Amino acid sequence: MVQIPKTPAAASRAPRSAPTSTDVARLAGVSRATVSYVLNDTGAVRISEPTRRRVHEAARELGYVPHAAARSLRAGHSRMVLMPAPAIPAGPLYSRFLSELQKALGHLDYTVVQYGSVGLRGDEAARAWAELRPVAVLVPGADLGPQGVAVLKRSGARAVVTLGPEPVEGAHALLMDHRTVGRCAGRHLYERGRRRIGVVVPEEAGLEAFAGPRLDGVRRAVRGTGTTVTELPLAYDERAAAALAARWRSLRLDAVFAYNDEYAMLLMRALQDEGIGIPEETAVIGADDLMLGRLLRPRLSTVRIRLPSGPQLAELVDRAVRDPAAAPVRRRVLDATPVHREST
Amino acid sequence: MVQIPKTPAAASRAPRSAPTSTDVARLAGVSRATVSYVLNDTGAVRISEPTRRRVHEAARELGYVPHAAARSLRAGHSRMVLMPAPAIPAGPLYSRFLSELQKALGHLDYTVVQYGSVGLRGDEAARAWAELRPVAVLVPGADLGPQGVAVLKRSGARAVVTLGPEPVEGAHALLMDHRTVGRCAGRHLYERGRRRIGVVVPEEAGLEAFAGPRLDGVRRAVRGTGTTVTELPLAYDERAAAALAARWRSLRLDAVFAYNDEYAMLLMRALQDEGIGIPEETAVIGADDLMLGRLLRPRLSTVRIRLPSGPQLAELVDRAVRDPAAAPVRRRVLDATPVHREST
Repeated sequence: MVQIPKTPAAASRAPRSAPTSTDVARLAGVSRATVSYVLNDTGAVRISEPTRRRVHEAARELGYVPHAAARSLRAGHSRMVLMPAPAIPAGPLYSRFLSELQKALGHLDYTVVQYGSVGLRGDEAARAWAELRPVAVLVPGADLGPQGVAVLKRSGARAVVTLGPEPVEGAHALLMDHRTVGRCAGRHLYERGRRRIGVVVPEEAGLEAFAGPRLDGVRRAVRGTGTTVTELPLAYDERAAAALAARWRSLRLDAVFAYNDEYAMLLMRALQDEGIGIPEETAVIGADDLMLGRLLRPRLSTVRIRLPSGPQLAELVDRAVRDPAAAPVRRRVLDATPVHREST
Repeated sequence: MVQIPKTPAAASRAPRSAPTSTDVARLAGVSRATVSYVLNDTGAVRISEPTRRRVHEAARELGYVPHAAARSLRAGHSRMVLMPAPAIPAGPLYSRFLSELQKALGHLDYTVVQYGSVGLRGDEAARAWAELRPVAVLVPGADLGPQGVAVLKRSGARAVVTLGPEPVEGAHALLMDHRTVGRCAGRHLYERGRRRIGVVVPEEAGLEAFAGPRLDGVRRAVRGTGTTVTELPLAYDERAAAALAARWRSLRLDAVFAYNDEYAMLLMRALQDEGIGIPEETAVIGADDLMLGRLLRPRLSTVRIRLPSGPQLAELVDRAVRDPAAAPVRRRVLDATPVHREST
């Protein structure tokens, strides 16, 4: 089952440590400069096809791998697009978005690298990212400041793109304003005749950046209509949901925006176990339009969130890389539409 | 709101391109070698605290960021642990595992980098990873071969750890045999008196590596008992589930292992809509023990899967990095136990 690679030449000629371009040059019978030209494909010098082939064969035989670091030192930049890895486990919507984006950037010959910056925040994190000399950096969230952008650019990043609620000086901004999601949910519930709306605010760390704006959006949607908005802190576990459901009738709510579909499923189950009629007594709406909402009974109303598509975003990054001097792009990309099903 | 960093010295003295260690040396009034000693913290040379401080201040003022690439070229390796990013959107179990592992490696001062290798497979991918010169590589799945391991090691990786069904020559192996999951589900259904078992095999690309072994595990669990096992291909959408449910009675099954909890939720809903009694007519069991299974009615039986904990795995990586000559570790890490609820 296990095959040892057959490289007799490598065994006899190569040193025991990592083979270098000098070894490749010796085996191919060319200069080191030629090896460098061929393997780094600089296009600066014309090299004949047979020589090219000889170098590639020697590299393969020796198992020589060019050093991305050394290459990017010479070229001044890499094809690496760096994204910080999410600090909390990614939800299904974001996971899908990420893998779509990765594929689209891959097609444009970029490599996406997700960087786990545990414990690092803001401009400190930017400094750590800069050490990898990415050609572009894509930062979800609101944590990067103008100094961080400057650090990244000085280190050679040609494009810094933020995905967050506010633009950051010097960076392209894809503006994702989660108030839009709350506004959409609030307006839907108001239009369904509800006047006492609860809004679930997850207690899980890392969700504040979304939960706050969503709550705020509901408030804005019903401002001046006499509708009350009640904040409902909730941990993502059955006991917390049961406790909230047990005191539900004392809250005198006729509707709830449950933050997203997963919290909606949790809360709706607890309300149903408590004998509360949905939607008669309480209307429930989630967000994200996950499959699970359609599988619930009553079927869950939700807010469909459209993020920028992978190919769209990849193209924006590519354009920004090609023209690093262009004025920063500001584009609103988060789109929310209500999906009315049976639970409201 | 937007603050431009105040760096008058930088503005007047620094070049417009990325500041170099030479610029730092000039501003701090020390030699370039001193800058390198201080910023790379080699510990090879003793340097006084005031000098150290001067260098750090000059670096900060100029916005100088050391080049990880250059640093790893000098040091011969980095603190980077590379993992290929999953090709399909990660499920909740894997997302949680990943972010736990990331945190644990971060505490040991490693940086986890997830590498999106779109279109690259096997040893070709290994070559791309090697270019980043990671100190350790952690590869889920079965795609890496012994040649890929050799390439990584030659490029300076001190530890290569695979998470997959089979060990790979030269690498440490955390053995994850998904037949264990199928065996656990099959045994549970058999013990509940079921003798005609369907097994859902997702049609989604990328899941074959798990679905095949799980099916195989069910077969092994009931071998020689006269129990039949029927393969049920299923796409993750409502129409496909409804179509399968519509012909359910003609299949004459009394139980189904639905691949995981999410497919179980999808199929259970379709069976219920078809009026099929669960568990009376058909017992349903999922896998992963997600929260959603507890929220269904009847409550979903499942297979709880224990992956190695983040800190455990991080420690193994760290030990392997410290002692690259140690014999490869082989450890079975996937643990499966049935969780009996109401659906079986």
